[in-house]
Amino acid sequence: MRCEIIAVGTELLMGQITNTNARDIARELLSLGVGVYYQTVVGDNEERLTEVVKRAMERADLIVFSGGLGPTDDDLTRDTVARVLGISMEKNEEWEKKLLEFFSRFKTPFAENNLRQTMIPRGALMLPNDRGTAPGIFLEKGRYTFVLLPGPPREMLPMLRAQVIPLLKKKLETSGELAVLQSRILHVIGLGESLLVEKLKDILDTQDNPTIAPLAKGTEVHLRLTAHGRFPGEVQALLTQKAEEIKSVLGDYVYGEDEDTLELAVARLLKAKGKTLALAESCTGGLLTHRLTNIPGSSEYLLSGLVTYSNEAKVNFLGVDPVSIQSKGAVSAEVAAEMSAGVRRVCGADISLSITGIAGPGGDTPQKPVGLTYISLEAENFSLTRKYQFWGSRVEIKERAAQAALYLLRRFLLDKLKEE
Amino acid sequence: MRCEIIAVGTELLMGQITNTNARDIARELLSLGVGVYYQTVVGDNEERLTEVVKRAMERADLIVFSGGLGPTDDDLTRDTVARVLGISMEKNEEWEKKLLEFFSRFKTPFAENNLRQTMIPRGALMLPNDRGTAPGIFLEKGRYTFVLLPGPPREMLPMLRAQVIPLLKKKLETSGELAVLQSRILHVIGLGESLLVEKLKDILDTQDNPTIAPLAKGTEVHLRLTAHGRFPGEVQALLTQKAEEIKSVLGDYVYGEDEDTLELAVARLLKAKGKTLALAESCTGGLLTHRLTNIPGSSEYLLSGLVTYSNEAKVNFLGVDPVSIQSKGAVSAEVAAEMSAGVRRVCGADISLSITGIAGPGGDTPQKPVGLTYISLEAENFSLTRKYQFWGSRVEIKERAAQAALYLLRRFLLDKLKEE
Repeated sequence: MRCEIIAVGTELLMGQITNTNARDIARELLSLGVGVYYQTVVGDNEERLTEVVKRAMERADLIVFSGGLGPTDDDLTRDTVARVLGISMEKNEEWEKKLLEFFSRFKTPFAENNLRQTMIPRGALMLPNDRGTAPGIFLEKGRYTFVLLPGPPREMLPMLRAQVIPLLKKKLETSGELAVLQSRILHVIGLGESLLVEKLKDILDTQDNPTIAPLAKGTEVHLRLTAHGRFPGEVQALLTQKAEEIKSVLGDYVYGEDEDTLELAVARLLKAKGKTLALAESCTGGLLTHRLTNIPGSSEYLLSGLVTYSNEAKVNFLGVDPVSIQSKGAVSAEVAAEMSAGVRRVCGADISLSITGIAGPGGDTPQKPVGLTYISLEAENFSLTRKYQFWGSRVEIKERAAQAALYLLRRFLLDKLKEE
Repeated sequence: MRCEIIAVGTELLMGQITNTNARDIARELLSLGVGVYYQTVVGDNEERLTEVVKRAMERADLIVFSGGLGPTDDDLTRDTVARVLGISMEKNEEWEKKLLEFFSRFKTPFAENNLRQTMIPRGALMLPNDRGTAPGIFLEKGRYTFVLLPGPPREMLPMLRAQVIPLLKKKLETSGELAVLQSRILHVIGLGESLLVEKLKDILDTQDNPTIAPLAKGTEVHLRLTAHGRFPGEVQALLTQKAEEIKSVLGDYVYGEDEDTLELAVARLLKAKGKTLALAESCTGGLLTHRLTNIPGSSEYLLSGLVTYSNEAKVNFLGVDPVSIQSKGAVSAEVAAEMSAGVRRVCGADISLSITGIAGPGGDTPQKPVGLTYISLEAENFSLTRKYQFWGSRVEIKERAAQAALYLLRRFLLDKLKEE
């Protein structure tokens, strides 16, 4: 089955919005083993849409549309597809009832043009829309399958996943074309891409099924494993086997899979060890605390995060010695260490982290450039302060510093820092 | 001039990356008044790319490519375009010199296939690439203009802006087709989209040049004004005039333009008034402090942000009465008020803000559902606590609460809170 994705909307052509729908549809289809050969964007123009539909029928058998299903006159996808196929439209009673109910429930005045959305091509399947007024359409004719989806991603994606993918899966099963293609992403931290590739050389050189693609992602490297087969269980087993093989080479450098984040990996370790945490941030301005509190249940381990931005706050809240600030500067190893010691003491935490640095722009000196940062970790009978030189914009320096602090904390929780 | 944008790359078709290049190219072209009629994505396949190029020549005269310019065998754009046009390739000596210099400077081994990137179609203009090894190509033939840009956005966008747009502008000036099209975005907060449209009814009903498009963006509404004309000065004047007209109706609901953020608007007000700020966060977990410290120079006004996540931290750092926590709960108007009073006192700040709420999932009770949040603001002779019920995921609730706190602070700094 060859697929073309057609996104309809002048706002896409003008660059006002990004075509994330094409990406998301392609990903979901790939999971069935369906290859997308073309993606096209066309405006709300009947003549050009007609031409695009005809061209797609020359080079694809599955044609998936997004957009142009709404109630107004410039929503053309429904009518244009039907006209090209020579199919007449008919009212869908089920959807008409739903729409009228919807409008009366929310006491919204009912505009007559909403009824356009109840018309679907004869013989097509109406796909109910839980999050909007325009239903989707699933239409088979000859060797073609047409799928019409609404444009807003929050309506499109649930409809695609819950309704369209199962329909296509059944169709592919019947025709014996179903292939299963699944990916898994391993998140690697602490190893650059080139070093990673070197360590994995043997595995990468002999890759076949799954394939393995490394991708640098900010301060991390992601390894995308993609496997194919006839059955989901078989494909998952291939992925798991290869993931384990990679982990046996990379060890703790792999901190998680798929949607995992570094803060989640750290949160799991803190919970498993039953340790509490306190944070003292200066240049990161609350970002580290924000990331750790994005994890549900973070109140179990996180006691406080003090953003001591001014020198006075460092002295008053954390007990930093004003003499240290005066002699060494607020951005110094000494002050970082006093900050982590102070926040651990005043919060009564098992472990503490502190960050002080120059996020810029400005505030730098020849001795202390923008990006210079000290991160300190304290725990029972343990204390470590590291110096970093980050680069980038103010926001990027904040991000890199917070990431480095999480990395340090993870190493500590894995009992790796003492060995270094 | 009719344009088609063609992005080349199998990773786009597989949904592994998003086609942001098409969006960015469309936006830049629109600023010259050039309309994009089609966007196409095709994989690294010679036959299909050839077909796509030929089709584009039937329906566009400006064809802009991104991707497929690299050194490997599956980088096909350069050769395919030249072959379709019947133009031979020749070595660009200037770029060969640059490449050899580059590799020797970074002591990188020079792979022979890099030389493929020095070949450009005879008669075409080579566009130097400051950030990568593949140059761009600008080629005119008959009524056609072909622009070939590298795929990585960080290489593509600077080349487009600094080299391609000026070339196209000159071309359009010569042919008398140059139009200037510019946009300005007004950021509105505190008014829903429907109320906003009602207030602006007269202006929206008579819109012509500029056009005005409202767009809901999370807790804000953005108004995009787009004007066209022959000269940039004329277009800017049209935009400024309409923006002023809208502001005279909406008043303080408009907090900024274009890239402005609410935290930047608040930062400007704090600096203008010379006021200092201290924050006490619970459920937002540092997000409010993080946003305010993203603004360069925030140390001028921000003294501290204390993320008092645990009850003990609220008592110890902010002097919240343990009896209040026990009788009213940590998420209550009383505790919010004590938090803002406490953080203002201990930091010696002019103004303080506090946030306490239930970000979920979990931690809720029948009386206190997920999303319940109290925000309190204290200043000299002023104190206000407001109750909110936010909805969404944990991260969304954090975002909405931080946004509401910034909004409250802005209203206070504009002397609007006393009137309410």
